[in-house]
Amino acid sequence: MKPSIPKGTRDFSPVELHKRQYIFGIIRDVYERFGFHPIETPVMENLSTLTGKYGEEGDKLLFKVLNNGDFLSKADPEALAEKDSQALAPSIARRGLRYDLTVPFARYVVMHQNDLTFPFKRYQIQPVWRADRPQKGRYQEFYQCDADAIGSDSLMYEAEYIQIIDEVFSTLGLKVEVKINSRKILAGIAEVSGVSDRMMEMTMAVDKLWKIGWEGVRRELLARDFTTDQIDHIQRYFSVEDVQSLRTIFADSEIGTTGLDEVDEIHGYLEGYELSQELVVDVTLARGLNYYTGCIFEVVSKEVKMGSILGGGRYDDLTGVFGMAGMSGVGISFGVERIFDILEELKRFPDDLDQTLDLLMLALDPESHKVAFKLLTEFRDSGLRTDLYPEPAKMKKQMKYANQTGVSHTLIIGSEEVEKGIYTLKNMKTGDQQKLSAAQIVETLQS
Amino acid sequence: MKPSIPKGTRDFSPVELHKRQYIFGIIRDVYERFGFHPIETPVMENLSTLTGKYGEEGDKLLFKVLNNGDFLSKADPEALAEKDSQALAPSIARRGLRYDLTVPFARYVVMHQNDLTFPFKRYQIQPVWRADRPQKGRYQEFYQCDADAIGSDSLMYEAEYIQIIDEVFSTLGLKVEVKINSRKILAGIAEVSGVSDRMMEMTMAVDKLWKIGWEGVRRELLARDFTTDQIDHIQRYFSVEDVQSLRTIFADSEIGTTGLDEVDEIHGYLEGYELSQELVVDVTLARGLNYYTGCIFEVVSKEVKMGSILGGGRYDDLTGVFGMAGMSGVGISFGVERIFDILEELKRFPDDLDQTLDLLMLALDPESHKVAFKLLTEFRDSGLRTDLYPEPAKMKKQMKYANQTGVSHTLIIGSEEVEKGIYTLKNMKTGDQQKLSAAQIVETLQS
Repeated sequence: MKPSIPKGTRDFSPVELHKRQYIFGIIRDVYERFGFHPIETPVMENLSTLTGKYGEEGDKLLFKVLNNGDFLSKADPEALAEKDSQALAPSIARRGLRYDLTVPFARYVVMHQNDLTFPFKRYQIQPVWRADRPQKGRYQEFYQCDADAIGSDSLMYEAEYIQIIDEVFSTLGLKVEVKINSRKILAGIAEVSGVSDRMMEMTMAVDKLWKIGWEGVRRELLARDFTTDQIDHIQRYFSVEDVQSLRTIFADSEIGTTGLDEVDEIHGYLEGYELSQELVVDVTLARGLNYYTGCIFEVVSKEVKMGSILGGGRYDDLTGVFGMAGMSGVGISFGVERIFDILEELKRFPDDLDQTLDLLMLALDPESHKVAFKLLTEFRDSGLRTDLYPEPAKMKKQMKYANQTGVSHTLIIGSEEVEKGIYTLKNMKTGDQQKLSAAQIVETLQS
Repeated sequence: MKPSIPKGTRDFSPVELHKRQYIFGIIRDVYERFGFHPIETPVMENLSTLTGKYGEEGDKLLFKVLNNGDFLSKADPEALAEKDSQALAPSIARRGLRYDLTVPFARYVVMHQNDLTFPFKRYQIQPVWRADRPQKGRYQEFYQCDADAIGSDSLMYEAEYIQIIDEVFSTLGLKVEVKINSRKILAGIAEVSGVSDRMMEMTMAVDKLWKIGWEGVRRELLARDFTTDQIDHIQRYFSVEDVQSLRTIFADSEIGTTGLDEVDEIHGYLEGYELSQELVVDVTLARGLNYYTGCIFEVVSKEVKMGSILGGGRYDDLTGVFGMAGMSGVGISFGVERIFDILEELKRFPDDLDQTLDLLMLALDPESHKVAFKLLTEFRDSGLRTDLYPEPAKMKKQMKYANQTGVSHTLIIGSEEVEKGIYTLKNMKTGDQQKLSAAQIVETLQS
């Protein structure tokens, strides 16, 4: 009888929602000014679109939607007889819930390729679903805020993302470190360390550096049969103070040199642009996803200890898996759930988001209530979010309501007020009262 | 290999999305000014919350989410043996997709009752899912825009909804007819026709009047064993020209009289308020859902033949099914998908929604491209949605891109422009060209 919601999902109250929309609004505004266009894709995708795109682990975390009607009539009889859930699923569920915004975007590009003009810059702010074990700060239903620019190799886009990141976090009032690196620099280090063919293994180990230190990374590489000599090289190259000191080291590595050139070109675009946040080239930055091929991005808070709050990078082949080759691009994704937690912890949300109503009117008698109802129109037309207690109840009851809702201003209306056209505006926080006309009230509350 | 999306779902392109957000934005703005607070509930609800709330037919249309992991290990063995899909479903799917916004709201109120202050006015704009057969204009995934005011019997709220409806459709530039009626008037007619105990059957037949005429309604009532005498009464009372002529007929019907009094009280609230749309009391209006107990609302377009584009009404008991009694309220729901279709058909969307970019810059050489990139910041900071073709490609190629994207203005930058700081702004629709400074361009495009 007592209702509940699924684990890992959330209701959003008015104040929470205002705070979330504040974050989304800032990101959306910046994305739009930077020439990104919004799209939305359906929550339900065909499982044929989703399956196999997120690795074996990801497939297990997909939410599958049961076919409607007599779904057992088409169930795989063998899987059913063997009670093999995994084998049975495809025959009784052909749709699933979106797992991220990247695969649906790739699907969108392929399906709408004839209507799109490339380069195409899209942004998308929508929820995604993952059957991860719910934890503090980790949900099964959560939002992503992605932007991608596809169909061009220009490093201008990398520079733009740095500007976007800088502007969004500055507008939110947060101090962050913007880390960039290039997969090509990583490939260069692998090459000059003599492990070109094992670059992924190398970067996956180095990716844990901040957690386990060089001692841990060395142990992991040894366990993976890297030689001590190779590991010494790797440690030395990844420990350079300044990325430019890799230039001589990369004298014989074309890909490494290209990576450095690209980082230089990105910095070139930003020459004269005043960044508010710290931008660093961090050669140890690897980012887990192995479809990145060029520049990679990561942002961490400088004020709250937490994982990355933005990730992204350049990829060579977004849509190949759907049969459309050669579509390269570069994208970023804001970790809005974590950004929300940081703003909450630091109390950086603007105060006025706590208010979802500007003015509450309280009437003392039926006649005043009628007048108050007509006054509502004047306030609402001027843009004020206004309400009237729905009946002329006892003042004590109405005041209790006003206090509980936390509204910032009330207006009390009785026969005297009606007669004079002058009303008492009360600031519920300070207790201050002012006697004002309707026009003066609008003026006061709008300022 | 060729990707697709599930039947009845849609991708939204940038222009479609701008148009949809235009509708949502107008509704949201009006709801907020009228003192409604936004909430959001999860897409996935427990099936125990949803099942049994929408009738037998509704239960069949619920999308169910397959449990993760080895779901067969807890499958009902009997249902499995008998291959009974319907009986098996509850044991392998404990969650489902939201079917409407009303039941999740009721669930929300019960779960958060200690944090809410009543009366509570909430609005909610989110998608819902129904496994209906997809048709033109009917989708499996579509949006609803609901508002409900609960915890008060005051008819002030009914009057407010009429104002809200009036304001939303006027802002959208649409001509509609706002129909209201009261379930109490319907009950009064049933009483004076001697069919008090069969009111639902009566109203369900009369509800089809616009489709099948009185001849059809009479036939249907006869088939249901209403007497000719009862049917004569019913036809006569439902055919009154003016609802007020029912007052004498209702002399002995307390509930009918109350219904008329309530309609009068609602009109009283609206005295002196200038409605832009036509408001009519239509005694034949019944609305299908049988949980309405008081005033009911419906809106139809006066310009495009289509079903209702808004519905709503007052109910006595929103949350009883979740164990919380006595929670009455009144709500409305805009049929946004149909409203979209009407605006599209009548070409009433504002022109500027076709544009998702204000200015596209085209650079003629690498040096100009660098200058253009720096100029971007000036335009974007002034709020203009601005982009730069990502490389100094051939002008023909860049112009082709500009034409295909449909951008309204381009700015061509070559060495001469860079030198003088004067750029050529081209209106792509008229072909007009102006030579302007960056500041003048901002001024021109902002106006």
